[in-house]
Amino acid sequence: MGRQLKLGAVLMGVGGPGQHDVWRHPEIPGDASVDIRWYIARARQAEDALFDLVFIVDSQFITPDSPPHYLNRLEPLTLLSAVAVHTTHIGLVGTLTTSYNSPFNLARRLASLDLISGGRAGWNVVATGDGGTAANYSRDEHYDYPSRYGRALESVQVCQGLWNSYEEDAFPRDPETGVFVDPSKQHRLDHVGEHFHVRGPLNIVRSPQGQPVIFQAGDSDEGRDLGAAVGEGIFTHAPTVEQGVAFARDLRSRARAKGRNPDEIVIMPGISPVIADTDEEARAIEADARLNKDFAKTLAQFGRPFGWHDFSRYDLDAPFPELGDLGADSFRTQADRIKQVARDEGLTLRQTVHRFSTATPAPFVGTPTTVADRIQEWFEAGALDGLNIHVTVPSDFARFTDEVLPILRDRGVVRSAYEATTLRGNLGLPIPRNTHAVARERRSHLIGA
Amino acid sequence: MGRQLKLGAVLMGVGGPGQHDVWRHPEIPGDASVDIRWYIARARQAEDALFDLVFIVDSQFITPDSPPHYLNRLEPLTLLSAVAVHTTHIGLVGTLTTSYNSPFNLARRLASLDLISGGRAGWNVVATGDGGTAANYSRDEHYDYPSRYGRALESVQVCQGLWNSYEEDAFPRDPETGVFVDPSKQHRLDHVGEHFHVRGPLNIVRSPQGQPVIFQAGDSDEGRDLGAAVGEGIFTHAPTVEQGVAFARDLRSRARAKGRNPDEIVIMPGISPVIADTDEEARAIEADARLNKDFAKTLAQFGRPFGWHDFSRYDLDAPFPELGDLGADSFRTQADRIKQVARDEGLTLRQTVHRFSTATPAPFVGTPTTVADRIQEWFEAGALDGLNIHVTVPSDFARFTDEVLPILRDRGVVRSAYEATTLRGNLGLPIPRNTHAVARERRSHLIGA
Repeated sequence: MGRQLKLGAVLMGVGGPGQHDVWRHPEIPGDASVDIRWYIARARQAEDALFDLVFIVDSQFITPDSPPHYLNRLEPLTLLSAVAVHTTHIGLVGTLTTSYNSPFNLARRLASLDLISGGRAGWNVVATGDGGTAANYSRDEHYDYPSRYGRALESVQVCQGLWNSYEEDAFPRDPETGVFVDPSKQHRLDHVGEHFHVRGPLNIVRSPQGQPVIFQAGDSDEGRDLGAAVGEGIFTHAPTVEQGVAFARDLRSRARAKGRNPDEIVIMPGISPVIADTDEEARAIEADARLNKDFAKTLAQFGRPFGWHDFSRYDLDAPFPELGDLGADSFRTQADRIKQVARDEGLTLRQTVHRFSTATPAPFVGTPTTVADRIQEWFEAGALDGLNIHVTVPSDFARFTDEVLPILRDRGVVRSAYEATTLRGNLGLPIPRNTHAVARERRSHLIGA
Repeated sequence: MGRQLKLGAVLMGVGGPGQHDVWRHPEIPGDASVDIRWYIARARQAEDALFDLVFIVDSQFITPDSPPHYLNRLEPLTLLSAVAVHTTHIGLVGTLTTSYNSPFNLARRLASLDLISGGRAGWNVVATGDGGTAANYSRDEHYDYPSRYGRALESVQVCQGLWNSYEEDAFPRDPETGVFVDPSKQHRLDHVGEHFHVRGPLNIVRSPQGQPVIFQAGDSDEGRDLGAAVGEGIFTHAPTVEQGVAFARDLRSRARAKGRNPDEIVIMPGISPVIADTDEEARAIEADARLNKDFAKTLAQFGRPFGWHDFSRYDLDAPFPELGDLGADSFRTQADRIKQVARDEGLTLRQTVHRFSTATPAPFVGTPTTVADRIQEWFEAGALDGLNIHVTVPSDFARFTDEVLPILRDRGVVRSAYEATTLRGNLGLPIPRNTHAVARERRSHLIGA
């Protein structure tokens, strides 16, 4: 068995960015984004198709113009905990920001989900992009860019330290002797860093996978460095196979430079495949979906990387406006790229919005065989280790699971059965040893030598 | 149907304070406190007995001497969310501290549990007592007593404000018109207070019970004021029926003074009943349990209200030591009461530890009829509106549900069927209206008049 493609399902309920009208589909209940039964049903659909994970995105700042799914959504860890006890094998990856959560609470809630699910938790580490979020958390200003990424890295390090609070055999629980805990195997962290100081120990044991899997999605230079430093799964967007390959090379090379094994990183771009009986039909569906989008809502969403800037004030058919450093404190990389492309290619505002509001990368549109071919091509080229499918309409998702995946399974590209009951086991990631136990072994080895 | 007794089950897994040896019982798995199946099974046991709620206590600071359940436990909201999707009627009350959580996150996670459970969430609002907790949250010192209670009250007010972010009919979700949200029914909070400023809106709708039920357990003057101001359920400890009556009167009178309806408060003392075939046998079991307690662990636990002060350094049979203001920044009321009783009665340290480490209030020990009689007596005297049963050994709990409750049910003291599927519905508490909708109605009434 060679390397196999990993599969994630992004559960977007009533529709995220660029999907302002998805909720009108008859298969989607209007309250899907707050209906736990909808999430459980989608997670089971993905588990039946042997997916590695479901992935829940998140945000904490809305305006009336936010996408439907953002306006009204369940909090990721309460959501995933409920899904955990109605599934058995699929990984449960939640987005939690390090900008507005303390590391002790993050470590604890993630460890709790990891135990509840029997070792299937993952954490998509984000540094909040929406500057407006600060006002929900008693802060006059959002953290600046370096602080956001500094806090993110240090938060992960603190969590991983706290997840070492108990060695694997810290609880003898011997009814004969009455010894419940071995105090020598409970460890304080005593972390003192630039952004946090955390004593520990954490009040929860390790799970069957040792600790939750760390995911990361930022694409800026700082984001890539964070992913290279601590990311075990990387969510990204790859517009072309070449860009996917270049991204994967860059990320693995950064990881190698940080002393990590680059093979212990799973890169999973997001895609929204459009599948039909003929390639022509699929292309028509995709074009039609793009045309039917409510332009006013698309324009509102386009403002997000620029701090939800209101673009409706500009002439749509005039050259893309001069924005100065707008966006520098929100989604900077994305804002900079949009500005540069618009300038370099001399686009109007309308053209720029169309260019950057395409939800579907073109190559994944066609018959099941076409889509399977493209996926295999990208996989074999090294543009991806796995895929993250955006799930809204259940029957669209079923076309992917029931028509595309069997082709890839026949070719040996995707699994025919789960390898493990933990997320690490299925992703092929190692289970990290408890650092204190390792140190103890080293000491006793030195004494024995 | 007159007023009926409400029932709560405190799920203590492997044993909390004063229960250092409970985990050795053959019916309790050593990892019960982190085994979600254990919690689901206990919640179902309570739901089968028509309990109003299960209650999860919490803490974030441990030492090797902490009680077994504290050393290793699931985080309350991930735990309750998993229980929610395996139960249908029982309320789910989680302890969350306002000292080390931001109100926006509290409001969101509780609202999420409330939706996941179909309107069964409750929040036990606590101001962290253990001073050592500060060091887990990047603070050099714990908040002082007034700040802790100020933050608690303001946190609840912010949460209740955020829970009004959407009016009941804010989401038309009309596929014909394409209108998903009515922007005029989404409301910012723009709270600016002493401890927090929070803009809002919250990104989640109201649940079938409007908003989570607020519980409170502090017994100090500040704690009682907080309970009187915002508590809808009050957890307490009543050593005698007279003290229970006095507490209930005091609390309701404080609530009345704050302009609240004192009948909209449910007072539920905690009890650990000891049930046997004869009263003598039950008393012997209770005495035996007290004698068999590991005294060193009891002594360590005794230090908790004094900031986990180490009492093993004193002569056990000398007079209770002079402690100055030790405990003033932890569980002050409890520490002060212990100091005063020891001084007034001239107790030794050993006598004081025995006096204050009794887990079981004496009156609830005896045959099922004796225990039922006492409960009814306390209930009719107005010492309680409900009970909070500490659940560890499942068969002990079953004696209560299967032998005591049927007696009370025959007498009409407890329900024979759930009245509702929401926690508010079962507790007889009103569903709070959305304040913006009420204001809108008042305005249109004025215009119409």
